[in-house]
Amino acid sequence: MSCLGRNTYLFDQGVYILSGAAVVGPKEGEGPLGSCFDKVWPKIQTAEKSWEDTEVKMQKEAVDLALAKAALGNHMIDVLLGGDLINQLTITNFAAKEREIPFLGLYNACATMAEGLLLGASLIGGGFAADAAVVASSHNATSERQYRFPTELGTQRPQTSQWTVTGAGAMVLSKQPSPLRIISGTVGKIVDYGVKDPNEMGAAMAPAAADTILQHLQNSERKAADYDLICTGDLGSHGHCLLAELLKKEHVLFEAQFQDSGMWIYEKKQDSHAGGSGCGCSATVWSSYLLDALRRGKYRRVLLVGTGALLSPVSVGQGHAIPAIAHAVEIVKEEKTVCG
Amino acid sequence: MSCLGRNTYLFDQGVYILSGAAVVGPKEGEGPLGSCFDKVWPKIQTAEKSWEDTEVKMQKEAVDLALAKAALGNHMIDVLLGGDLINQLTITNFAAKEREIPFLGLYNACATMAEGLLLGASLIGGGFAADAAVVASSHNATSERQYRFPTELGTQRPQTSQWTVTGAGAMVLSKQPSPLRIISGTVGKIVDYGVKDPNEMGAAMAPAAADTILQHLQNSERKAADYDLICTGDLGSHGHCLLAELLKKEHVLFEAQFQDSGMWIYEKKQDSHAGGSGCGCSATVWSSYLLDALRRGKYRRVLLVGTGALLSPVSVGQGHAIPAIAHAVEIVKEEKTVCG
Repeated sequence: MSCLGRNTYLFDQGVYILSGAAVVGPKEGEGPLGSCFDKVWPKIQTAEKSWEDTEVKMQKEAVDLALAKAALGNHMIDVLLGGDLINQLTITNFAAKEREIPFLGLYNACATMAEGLLLGASLIGGGFAADAAVVASSHNATSERQYRFPTELGTQRPQTSQWTVTGAGAMVLSKQPSPLRIISGTVGKIVDYGVKDPNEMGAAMAPAAADTILQHLQNSERKAADYDLICTGDLGSHGHCLLAELLKKEHVLFEAQFQDSGMWIYEKKQDSHAGGSGCGCSATVWSSYLLDALRRGKYRRVLLVGTGALLSPVSVGQGHAIPAIAHAVEIVKEEKTVCG
Repeated sequence: MSCLGRNTYLFDQGVYILSGAAVVGPKEGEGPLGSCFDKVWPKIQTAEKSWEDTEVKMQKEAVDLALAKAALGNHMIDVLLGGDLINQLTITNFAAKEREIPFLGLYNACATMAEGLLLGASLIGGGFAADAAVVASSHNATSERQYRFPTELGTQRPQTSQWTVTGAGAMVLSKQPSPLRIISGTVGKIVDYGVKDPNEMGAAMAPAAADTILQHLQNSERKAADYDLICTGDLGSHGHCLLAELLKKEHVLFEAQFQDSGMWIYEKKQDSHAGGSGCGCSATVWSSYLLDALRRGKYRRVLLVGTGALLSPVSVGQGHAIPAIAHAVEIVKEEKTVCG
């Protein structure tokens, strides 16, 4: 078995990240990571007819860029795994439809990128695929009107709310060796602490993140200090504080290596309140800045923890609390590329 | 590699189906397969507050029954894979949240059960999990009001339309030998023939089914005649005729072994028009009647072909055609349970 405990998968057969690419909107381009993204669009809507068509185009571009960097064409990718926030995965279905790549649609809200990395690595590690592409995206305008209010209303947002990122991130995974290797991953369970306010998604997701991090550390017999970076995506500042509380209770040393992609993507003055969110947040930050930082040697061993709030306008309207989930993916920069 | 061609996965490590269970609504209970389902609800809404909560309960019951038949508790299942038609997988998220089973949310419309079987088999075949549960559901009332019109309107449906099944189906997969074995599976590509009418989903899905069936036969070097049954789910009578045309053009002998779960589930007099549809259609038919028929020896080698119409009310409203996808799963009844 390539499994530690019940839910930590070991990819000792060799699963590598060949490339990553991120395409973002203007607000994300103006943020602290602006220069790290492969492409920054000057407007949130292009010449496409709708916001949805715009997000489709953005997702296509991210996958095209990641494939180009890996020097692989559509016909060389064995499977495409991906998802987005829009009902019935509209964006991903339409972005994927011209590629002729075998396709698996995924939905774990903002943990979708992590879910895709885990399943892509499992298909390669299990010998079912040689090369896989993983993609996730969100768009502020498509999400806001679906989940909350018509954007034209300009509804005021509380300080605990997060700003849905406009962006698409994609990675190409392969059994072909490269310096970035996916070592292991932990599939999370759904956790529900009874948080009911959709403007407090960080609070809803923090317990799921804590659960998965503890599970991963326990199964892999590691300490938090073994990682240069444990990057949640995307709890925002509110959820990040709650994660610190939860992990400290469990005697985990919560130090500077704990970071959050939702806190990285915007500056305070950008009025995003608690930070970024959406499938596109962790997907863009991890597919660009994070992979580059690993390549440059800034980090050597990182744990990416995708966090998803499993709410829908229907479940919120019917008075239910917000269940959440988190999946972890461990990536290392190998000193030397292992051959064969 | 455990792969034939680019997208047919071989589960030669041994992946078995321990059990299956299906819970359905009254209309499905009155249909030709009524006596095969594990539980038939007398009404489409139970004491739950909403149709959505009712579908949640139905999905929970299906998984509970499948686990009970496999004599496995929640804590013994390594991973739960599932999905439904409701925005953001509301039903599956809420049904899964108390189980404490590592969870992966999937969405490929009515091909979700097939997607779950493929991924569950891959996780077991790849050595990442020992036991997995797969579930999919739909509910006529939750779907109709989300996709089409308020049910109270009683809008007239054309003859090519299908009736969304009220039902949940679940299977337990394992590396532990049992007479039903998943031999292989093919991950499909998205196919779009430009069909725009959401009341013609059979027409939209038939080309995807044809593509995946041809791919599976070619990769496995098999003929259609090698199977006792090739069961699509759920093209309905309209899509089934179109599939016959498409396959005959490709010189596939389209004979009586081609069947469709959407055509099986209702009788003509039940006014379902072209047949059943929804994630719950193939999920319930396959998890109950089909597994039983395999066990009884009625079939020895079957190819299940889940078909999904990847539309959303947004994509239809914005004038887009309906892309579709199909995934195939090959199951055999083994003469003798292989030990070890």
